[in-house]
Amino acid sequence: MAYTLAEIVARFGGRVLGDAQLEITQVATLELADSSQISFLTNSRYRAQLADTKAGALILGEADAQATALPRIISANPYAYFAKVSALLNPLPAIVPGVHPSAVIGAGALIDPTASVAAMAVVGAGAIVGAHSVIGEGSFIGDNVVVGRHVRLYPRVVIYHDCVIGDNLIAHSGVVIGADGFGIAMDEGRWIKIPQIGRVVIGNDVEIGANTTIDRGALDDTVIEEGVKLDNQIQIAHNVRVGAHTAIAGCVGIAGSTTIGKYCQIGGSAGILGHLKITDNVVIASFTLIGKSISEAGSYAAIFPFGKTEDWRKNAVHLRHLDEMAKRIKILEQKLLKQESLKGNS
Amino acid sequence: MAYTLAEIVARFGGRVLGDAQLEITQVATLELADSSQISFLTNSRYRAQLADTKAGALILGEADAQATALPRIISANPYAYFAKVSALLNPLPAIVPGVHPSAVIGAGALIDPTASVAAMAVVGAGAIVGAHSVIGEGSFIGDNVVVGRHVRLYPRVVIYHDCVIGDNLIAHSGVVIGADGFGIAMDEGRWIKIPQIGRVVIGNDVEIGANTTIDRGALDDTVIEEGVKLDNQIQIAHNVRVGAHTAIAGCVGIAGSTTIGKYCQIGGSAGILGHLKITDNVVIASFTLIGKSISEAGSYAAIFPFGKTEDWRKNAVHLRHLDEMAKRIKILEQKLLKQESLKGNS
Amino acid sequence: MAYTLAEIVARFGGRVLGDAQLEITQVATLELADSSQISFLTNSRYRAQLADTKAGALILGEADAQATALPRIISANPYAYFAKVSALLNPLPAIVPGVHPSAVIGAGALIDPTASVAAMAVVGAGAIVGAHSVIGEGSFIGDNVVVGRHVRLYPRVVIYHDCVIGDNLIAHSGVVIGADGFGIAMDEGRWIKIPQIGRVVIGNDVEIGANTTIDRGALDDTVIEEGVKLDNQIQIAHNVRVGAHTAIAGCVGIAGSTTIGKYCQIGGSAGILGHLKITDNVVIASFTLIGKSISEAGSYAAIFPFGKTEDWRKNAVHLRHLDEMAKRIKILEQKLLKQESLKGNS
Repeated sequence: MAYTLAEIVARFGGRVLGDAQLEITQVATLELADSSQISFLTNSRYRAQLADTKAGALILGEADAQATALPRIISANPYAYFAKVSALLNPLPAIVPGVHPSAVIGAGALIDPTASVAAMAVVGAGAIVGAHSVIGEGSFIGDNVVVGRHVRLYPRVVIYHDCVIGDNLIAHSGVVIGADGFGIAMDEGRWIKIPQIGRVVIGNDVEIGANTTIDRGALDDTVIEEGVKLDNQIQIAHNVRVGAHTAIAGCVGIAGSTTIGKYCQIGGSAGILGHLKITDNVVIASFTLIGKSISEAGSYAAIFPFGKTEDWRKNAVHLRHLDEMAKRIKILEQKLLKQESLKGNS
Repeated sequence: MAYTLAEIVARFGGRVLGDAQLEITQVATLELADSSQISFLTNSRYRAQLADTKAGALILGEADAQATALPRIISANPYAYFAKVSALLNPLPAIVPGVHPSAVIGAGALIDPTASVAAMAVVGAGAIVGAHSVIGEGSFIGDNVVVGRHVRLYPRVVIYHDCVIGDNLIAHSGVVIGADGFGIAMDEGRWIKIPQIGRVVIGNDVEIGANTTIDRGALDDTVIEEGVKLDNQIQIAHNVRVGAHTAIAGCVGIAGSTTIGKYCQIGGSAGILGHLKITDNVVIASFTLIGKSISEAGSYAAIFPFGKTEDWRKNAVHLRHLDEMAKRIKILEQKLLKQESLKGNS
Repeated sequence: MAYTLAEIVARFGGRVLGDAQLEITQVATLELADSSQISFLTNSRYRAQLADTKAGALILGEADAQATALPRIISANPYAYFAKVSALLNPLPAIVPGVHPSAVIGAGALIDPTASVAAMAVVGAGAIVGAHSVIGEGSFIGDNVVVGRHVRLYPRVVIYHDCVIGDNLIAHSGVVIGADGFGIAMDEGRWIKIPQIGRVVIGNDVEIGANTTIDRGALDDTVIEEGVKLDNQIQIAHNVRVGAHTAIAGCVGIAGSTTIGKYCQIGGSAGILGHLKITDNVVIASFTLIGKSISEAGSYAAIFPFGKTEDWRKNAVHLRHLDEMAKRIKILEQKLLKQESLKGNS
């Protein structure tokens, strides 16, 4: 597959500087690109790296338009532009429609004739699989699940009964959607289970990384709005709502009944306690636990700064005495104040 | 399915105030319940919410018995009562006994005739599956595993060879029981593997959330005692023992050979280092790392408080200088003490 | 299976003190060993435990050679020695070569005749499975994957297309190798996906714990070098490189494009941000977030010390005022300095 720079800008916009008839066949990093490949620069700070690249062409922002003599496409958003070019050059394998003979399809399930159900997959009774969707090898779709169009479930995805999946979902291997939330009540020395009768409802254009889990609601639904992007090994508890276009990095845990706004970004291994409300456009740093609702957009953090273990130990020990330390400072201040007032009086 | 309030209290105790012949068909939240549904209040602080509910009936504690005119059941423990009513109204689908033709059953495996082995499941040689148990789609039961009665393995659960599972286990999709613990020894510049020859032994009435992993013991067994409730994505290392009726929230990691007491509660993303002993009735906050044994029941925490990133940065930088700060306070105190003693002497 | 101490030292070196003809059949802990079993002591501090053991024989370091009258093997590295004896006494079950009739093998896949493909496994088109390798029940090998020799994939491992796996890999259930990295670009209010066209390349002698995920590279490859040992539920993002013989404990997250050196050790639930470089021989404590590159070998930590919740609360509140506290100390110092200089002047 090869496209000229002219063909690419005809498709995605931007403008070409240099040889617009140059054909490129693949995207690559500045370091490893060869003359048949196109690379990109998203941050002018690294402009010096352009000098050494062997790429055939580049995607650059306006600020870097003249930073190279190589053929180049100038775009207001070179990173998104690169994403589009990469998608053009790396299409997903074509879907082979049909149900593999080893797959098991429940009574009354409706599989669109353009959809693909791979080997060892199981589709429950009454489930619906939309047009051009792929149910990967060994995936399990529970009874009455609704899967939209152009959905791609990689091998070994599980969707429990009654969940509703929008169009264009990408779910990677090991994803579990709709398992029971963690609902227990103590009753005379024993935990009893609270049936989890809500569903998971997922909007359009969502991606879910490998081994991420999204629990079904206890009574109402757990909701992932459109355009949400979830990395690997995230845990989303029952009755959480994740707002549209929010992006969450790996290993994050979100406790039950918390609502997260739109266009939030949550760093890796962060956590959010239950029953909170996080407004739109909140950025949460990696490793940060959010323990209260956030009503103001902005960036939040709580990271213990790392150091050499001996330094950390020497400093951290005082954390157990911070309150005492604060009181000692107060006493010192009062003593000095008294001295000063005595002097003032004298 | 519908029950009158009178039928419900006949079954679960408590007493009815108002129309005991009212029929209810489902449980729901105060916000979303309709007149055919029963809702509940577990905390008198939220009593004001009763005013707006459209629920047909309520489950309330004694303190709130007169807080509404709606038909209501009064119980000493309304949350547990609600759990029981929900279970009554939401029974699990009936088990269809038998082995699906696509399942593979090893030599000498004993599957109780009342049990169900679903499509694509594999049961190893010599394994035992007890009465009324369900081996979900694509689940794998290793050789010589013993699965008790009324066990429910959701799709894609894996249990390695020789593990022993009590009655009533619920294990959600992606659970892995009995994989090798992380045992390695350095030998002339290379790690060599320590065979993990213990088992995982799980008591009765345990629930395990999606994608949680419990490693087999290195020499002795890893033990999960009866009534333990584990949320999703928990990692339990080899030779850990979790005491009866302990509840652990999502994403917790427990390192090898640690013993946790009975009736503990461990918050999400917490961690416990290896070779520790945590006594009974310990509550550990989310995001807290326990680095020493705990011999006294109570509540423990270690959370860095979050703030706006600019505030956090300004404050956190001093953590690298706490020791110096403590020394400076000490010097100030000594200087003032000296001044005072000079004055005293003068 | 039984071996005399003499046979064992003939195989693994070291020397016997006491009855070299004693036969042992299994390894066990000091507490639980019986007279047919051999136990071991790796730390002289616990030497007192030797007094009570019922083990038939022991593996000891030189320093403890005379600490017991039991038959014993003396080795410079008793822990590694014990690992070897355990492997001798606990061989893995023999591989039954061949492809299970329920497995699905893609066009052009090459399965070595000595390899085993278990029930419900799927091997993609053009994939290669090397000699003496085992593809576990329900595992999925994507198109064109290369699996080396003596590889053992436990049930339900997934390897996406084009990845390359060295010899002797052990991958536990739920492992996902080669899922898409988390690559998204914001474009006019919507995230667009960046195709992940790199691979995962894994060297020889690697072990990967249950439910660990290793993402494929965005453009170049994600690389796990030889001898790396990964525990359960680790997340390794795209384009990470993990250096040879590095060991990583459970629940660690490593963000994209970070390079980790050789012989590092990373504690449980630690994290490393993206685009960093960690040199060789770095030890990172559990629960520590590494936010900057580390160019000096050594031990690093960042753990908030836990305490009783009421103590923690009293102390932690000051973390939001550390900067103010530092300023107050400075003011105190300046005032005292001024007093002193006044006195000096007076």
